[in-house]
Amino acid sequence: MEATEVKMRQNEIIQPLLTDLYQLTMAYAYWKSGKVDDTAVFDLFFRKNPFSGEFTIFAGLEQCIKFLFNFRYSDSDITYLKQILPPYVEEEFFRYLKNLTVEDVTLFAIPEGSVVFPRVPLLRVEGPLIVVQLLETTFLNLINYSSLIATNAARFRMAAGKRIKLLEFGLRRAQGPDGGLSASKYAYLGGFDGTSNVLAGKLFHIPVKGTHAHAYISSFSTLADLKTRDLAVYDQNGSDLIESRDFVETCIKRRDQLATLLGILLQEANDGELAAFISYAMAFPDGFTALVDTYEVLSWSGETPSQRYISEPRLHYRSGLLNFCAVAVALSDFGYRPIGIRLDSGDLAYLSNRARDAFRKIAEELTIPWFAQLSIVASNDINEETILSLNDQHHQIDCFGIGTHLVTCQKQPALGCVYKLVEINKQPKIKLSEDLEKVTIPGRKDIYRLYGSDGHALIDLMQKHGEPPPLAGNRVLCRHPFLESKRAYVNPARVEPLLHIYWQNGRCCQPLPSMEQLRHRVQHQLGTIRQDHKRNLNPTPYKVSVSDSLYSYLHKLWLQNAPIGELS
Amino acid sequence: MEATEVKMRQNEIIQPLLTDLYQLTMAYAYWKSGKVDDTAVFDLFFRKNPFSGEFTIFAGLEQCIKFLFNFRYSDSDITYLKQILPPYVEEEFFRYLKNLTVEDVTLFAIPEGSVVFPRVPLLRVEGPLIVVQLLETTFLNLINYSSLIATNAARFRMAAGKRIKLLEFGLRRAQGPDGGLSASKYAYLGGFDGTSNVLAGKLFHIPVKGTHAHAYISSFSTLADLKTRDLAVYDQNGSDLIESRDFVETCIKRRDQLATLLGILLQEANDGELAAFISYAMAFPDGFTALVDTYEVLSWSGETPSQRYISEPRLHYRSGLLNFCAVAVALSDFGYRPIGIRLDSGDLAYLSNRARDAFRKIAEELTIPWFAQLSIVASNDINEETILSLNDQHHQIDCFGIGTHLVTCQKQPALGCVYKLVEINKQPKIKLSEDLEKVTIPGRKDIYRLYGSDGHALIDLMQKHGEPPPLAGNRVLCRHPFLESKRAYVNPARVEPLLHIYWQNGRCCQPLPSMEQLRHRVQHQLGTIRQDHKRNLNPTPYKVSVSDSLYSYLHKLWLQNAPIGELS
Repeated sequence: MEATEVKMRQNEIIQPLLTDLYQLTMAYAYWKSGKVDDTAVFDLFFRKNPFSGEFTIFAGLEQCIKFLFNFRYSDSDITYLKQILPPYVEEEFFRYLKNLTVEDVTLFAIPEGSVVFPRVPLLRVEGPLIVVQLLETTFLNLINYSSLIATNAARFRMAAGKRIKLLEFGLRRAQGPDGGLSASKYAYLGGFDGTSNVLAGKLFHIPVKGTHAHAYISSFSTLADLKTRDLAVYDQNGSDLIESRDFVETCIKRRDQLATLLGILLQEANDGELAAFISYAMAFPDGFTALVDTYEVLSWSGETPSQRYISEPRLHYRSGLLNFCAVAVALSDFGYRPIGIRLDSGDLAYLSNRARDAFRKIAEELTIPWFAQLSIVASNDINEETILSLNDQHHQIDCFGIGTHLVTCQKQPALGCVYKLVEINKQPKIKLSEDLEKVTIPGRKDIYRLYGSDGHALIDLMQKHGEPPPLAGNRVLCRHPFLESKRAYVNPARVEPLLHIYWQNGRCCQPLPSMEQLRHRVQHQLGTIRQDHKRNLNPTPYKVSVSDSLYSYLHKLWLQNAPIGELS
Repeated sequence: MEATEVKMRQNEIIQPLLTDLYQLTMAYAYWKSGKVDDTAVFDLFFRKNPFSGEFTIFAGLEQCIKFLFNFRYSDSDITYLKQILPPYVEEEFFRYLKNLTVEDVTLFAIPEGSVVFPRVPLLRVEGPLIVVQLLETTFLNLINYSSLIATNAARFRMAAGKRIKLLEFGLRRAQGPDGGLSASKYAYLGGFDGTSNVLAGKLFHIPVKGTHAHAYISSFSTLADLKTRDLAVYDQNGSDLIESRDFVETCIKRRDQLATLLGILLQEANDGELAAFISYAMAFPDGFTALVDTYEVLSWSGETPSQRYISEPRLHYRSGLLNFCAVAVALSDFGYRPIGIRLDSGDLAYLSNRARDAFRKIAEELTIPWFAQLSIVASNDINEETILSLNDQHHQIDCFGIGTHLVTCQKQPALGCVYKLVEINKQPKIKLSEDLEKVTIPGRKDIYRLYGSDGHALIDLMQKHGEPPPLAGNRVLCRHPFLESKRAYVNPARVEPLLHIYWQNGRCCQPLPSMEQLRHRVQHQLGTIRQDHKRNLNPTPYKVSVSDSLYSYLHKLWLQNAPIGELS
């Protein structure tokens, strides 16, 4: 049991009071109205895929389960609630809250890491009305952003392709400390390869990556700033240390030689930068990546950036490139293998191609074959469209470091999950709205995904709970939930029930997958979705349908509930 | 001391590992290069005001100071770092980290809650190079979002005017649990009146507000769902309880009467909704606010919302309005005073005017004067522009509940604060860039705000540290940092130094203002900024200048550092 408690620990701010006050005022009003024994079913779902896309990655479920596991009002919570609720709220209600548990809650959910679509319940939450109502805000908070960022990450992954490494660099621009942690975690789940966020690495076992910043380079002015010059030489087999030699001298010699080879004037190369690269390489001889700055010497700048001339980002970049190559070749002389460069400004496609040209030339001329494959990281304000556009330009980038656009989901910073009552005391409830999009599908529902014979998902089908499940090889009528004329017979090769019980009788009743399993699930799930649903430009909507029986049930209820207009 | 520790407590995820890995790899490379005793000065600033505006509210300073107070690497941090850094990183470095403190760091800052402008350092951080470098990411994380949301909140406040209440309702759409907490806290600081987030209320002593959700209404189907009917009557003086009477009966009678008065047919009113209102009123007789739903009976909906007809949102709204008024008048009969309604859909200006008409009519006909002043809350996807547009339409809304647009800062979800090295070992550093916007102002700087005789701020002036401060009544030359021809003599009526020491010798050396003091500071500071800098449409940029001496210093360094192009 103690092991479970450790496993179920989470950030202490995820607690029952992390909710909207109206959940508690409603709880009191329900309690006061004698609805303590009422039971309810709520669906948690979203209405529209984010980022103008046609799919969403569901994430945040594990956090919801941990929230349930830890759900109890503390004495200090009760004391606080007594302060903020009106004085006439009965003492007995606070005792009720203090003893309230989530033992009678049953949580059905689609597995975390699944590809999901609008209207389909991600969670179906059943239990005492008051208790399930009290879970609303926290569930929404835990799922909305997690799913949004996982979806965003998955989209970046698709844009970049499988070969390219994707690193999340967004902590400094994230929406608060936990915004940063959630971003790192769910970006990894959605398909990133690592993060710069050390705490995220520690807490969630995510690979942590990083190089150095411009400040590191600025902190050196001349080669005289180098206080140590010697570096241990590895032998040709790369295993044993032989001796220490003057590394700085080798770097300078190599730079003289490479300047000619690369056609860069020595005067173009900055000595402070070389000193910085040398010192960093001496600290991380096996992990040397250099930030190669660009400085546009040919621009005449007016007051605003839009007025500046655009031309080849030439000189300063050439300094960085030459200095990097000098240190990298010197490392090779000493038996080490550097990693590569990071570009953080300028025309990334152009610069990556020029850098690759230089690497290839050196590989050939100096017979260092791996030099041609040195890694090129790009990290300047990258979004999904930048990557797609770079792809068109045939860049030579191996890795993108992505910050602001990933973590703040700039393109659409919120996923609009909602939590709607669909049944009370076994009576179905429908929410009507002027927008068809906002009309809810009433009642407890079972959800199936129907697959075609090629393994791709064809359609999601919602049925009234208890209807016989669709069977592989049997034709089933799938209807648009609202438009009478839109329907199709589907003959699935495989049928997958989407909702599973995750919480019942006060216990989590599924094994919670590891982060690696979740990552794998995301990519596997994306593989089951047709390409036209996933493409960036004008993707085809995936169909979500209802059974014939649910269609009739829904429309009967709709008519019963809709007031009749009277024109005069 | 213990009291200080309690006061300085903060969310445990704000810790030294909440940083980018490269800060730690740089720390090792600095350490390995013998730069342990190097000293540095970093400026933290932003380059562009958010939301197409011309001002920013600075927030997050207290969190930075608490971070300093609690800064130490734990044994478990060191163990983790040993795992992720290469095996050849020296043991001695980890001992260095373990013993590392922020005792030698000096932090200068502009007071939290100030109005601030681009390029001006919000923080000037001085101390050992390694240590001040290690603070970068966490400081940026703590300041970026806090300042962004405080600025957003201040903009909403200006759009709404002083009379209107503003409540933050964004927890469910916030970027993670702490995103929600930060949003609630800094929205309050920026000028909101309260939040729905209970935990934020508990942790930060912010007023907490809330009513009920649609689910509450849905959970009642008929008047038979009301299990209690009696409510205690208050006597005319509103102090003593007299007796309990049948409240439901009074509500029904009042509804019959008001239907005629308001010209609403009884058949238009939904009994389930009335039951829900009655039960909520019985739970909160002194705090009754009702969610008045709208349902557009006259729209013929196609598949997408854009295809639907727009017409008067008539019937369902009329149900809610009639039911609310019935319960509210009944409450008045029983000696209570309800609060009002919440509109969460439909045409808010139109609906608020119609509701106000109804309230006024009842106030007059039934001689209940305060009925005309019942509160109208609006809460459907409100942003700054919605409020400005509603203002033009002469709405009757008293309070806005604002969620997604406030907490995610949809209009611009990140403030781009940066942390730049400006001095090392007493030598100034400049960062050059193709964008003038990205060029840094080198060296330690003192910052002054110069005020005119009408009390408004005229200009901010950066000087080299140690230059004699500008004096009130004395003309001072203020120059554009980059454009030679742009300069002005300014004769300030008052001069305010902006930077103050907040941390020195391991201690916080300023009293940290309370939340109420910070709120007050924001509004007071905004009062010192000319209206044209603050307006929503095409605001005038506020000027940030450098002294003549800093101008020369900056440009000399620039030329020294800029490589000379060579065209061929």
